[in-house]
Amino acid sequence: MGQPLDDAALDTIFRTARSYNHYLDRPVEESTLHAIWDVMKWGPTSANQLPARLVWCTSEDAKAALAACASEGNRDKILHAPVTAIVGMDENFHEHLPELFPHTDAKSWFDGNAELRRASAFRNSSLQGGYFIVAVRALGLDCGSMSGFDGGLVDKAFFADQPGVTTNFIATLGYGDPATLHARSPRPDFARFNRIA
Amino acid sequence: MGQPLDDAALDTIFRTARSYNHYLDRPVEESTLHAIWDVMKWGPTSANQLPARLVWCTSEDAKAALAACASEGNRDKILHAPVTAIVGMDENFHEHLPELFPHTDAKSWFDGNAELRRASAFRNSSLQGGYFIVAVRALGLDCGSMSGFDGGLVDKAFFADQPGVTTNFIATLGYGDPATLHARSPRPDFARFNRIA
Repeated sequence: MGQPLDDAALDTIFRTARSYNHYLDRPVEESTLHAIWDVMKWGPTSANQLPARLVWCTSEDAKAALAACASEGNRDKILHAPVTAIVGMDENFHEHLPELFPHTDAKSWFDGNAELRRASAFRNSSLQGGYFIVAVRALGLDCGSMSGFDGGLVDKAFFADQPGVTTNFIATLGYGDPATLHARSPRPDFARFNRIA
Repeated sequence: MGQPLDDAALDTIFRTARSYNHYLDRPVEESTLHAIWDVMKWGPTSANQLPARLVWCTSEDAKAALAACASEGNRDKILHAPVTAIVGMDENFHEHLPELFPHTDAKSWFDGNAELRRASAFRNSSLQGGYFIVAVRALGLDCGSMSGFDGGLVDKAFFADQPGVTTNFIATLGYGDPATLHARSPRPDFARFNRIA
């Protein structure tokens, strides 16, 4: 167990953190994208599957190509954000398990079972999506996740050379502009969605 | 944006944190379970869906019932952990959206589209699973996530009265015993699973 986080840290990653659609005019360095990965990669996945495949769109061309695949309300968000990340998932993650989970033959658990691989890739790349969002905030940045896009088009534009990789969700990132925030949606108390057994 | 986390906090939630199967003989109070929810609930989900439904197994009866649904290698872990949480997902989450996402009619986006609801519940409850793991660690505890169980049996034993709720994954929690840890699985560098576009 580690040293518990103080109030300021809990606020940064969860309690007062917000999703953003608009960012300050402040660049995000490529080294910061590496730093996000170097934090989020430590988050646990089942059998160390690490099925997430990330494309960080930083160029005008990449943002335009991604915006063309997005729902109309999301296009401007992508074009104006310093970076938009595509969080993909690789249903052939098991090919990497001999290296990533070396102490047993975990690859054999998934060979020939595409349905299990798809469910595992979806669950575990989404867990990694949660780690991504927390890591972005932990490093002092903000993000805004979106699922309003045509997955088939994004796959074709960005993962055509990676068979088995499909898009899970996308997220703008940068340094959020607090002036653009709306009221926060409510979060229910423990009793609503939790039970002690 | 919040104040960036210091090295100790990044270590606690990601860099030196580990998954545990064995815990110290130290109880976990019910108030701590409430505290975990009160942190993790702030993590963002699409349209504030919050589809996760958690059952915290603390009694001997509940742990025995859950262990009976688990793969053989996971039974003792569940029986001996202070708490095992079941992270369920509600494909009828949209019924709550008039309250949780009040500024628009988000419920209508999901009415009559069970396939979209199932994918949304899976993705977003997994994101919440990531927040759960980070929140547990942020509060100074440890956890060990597992997908080795019979989902149909767990659903029947714990969600029979909640139609539409199925089990996503389960996780033991407590104060981890570092003496029981094995070597850590490798995490690849940025270039392996990331690309700048």
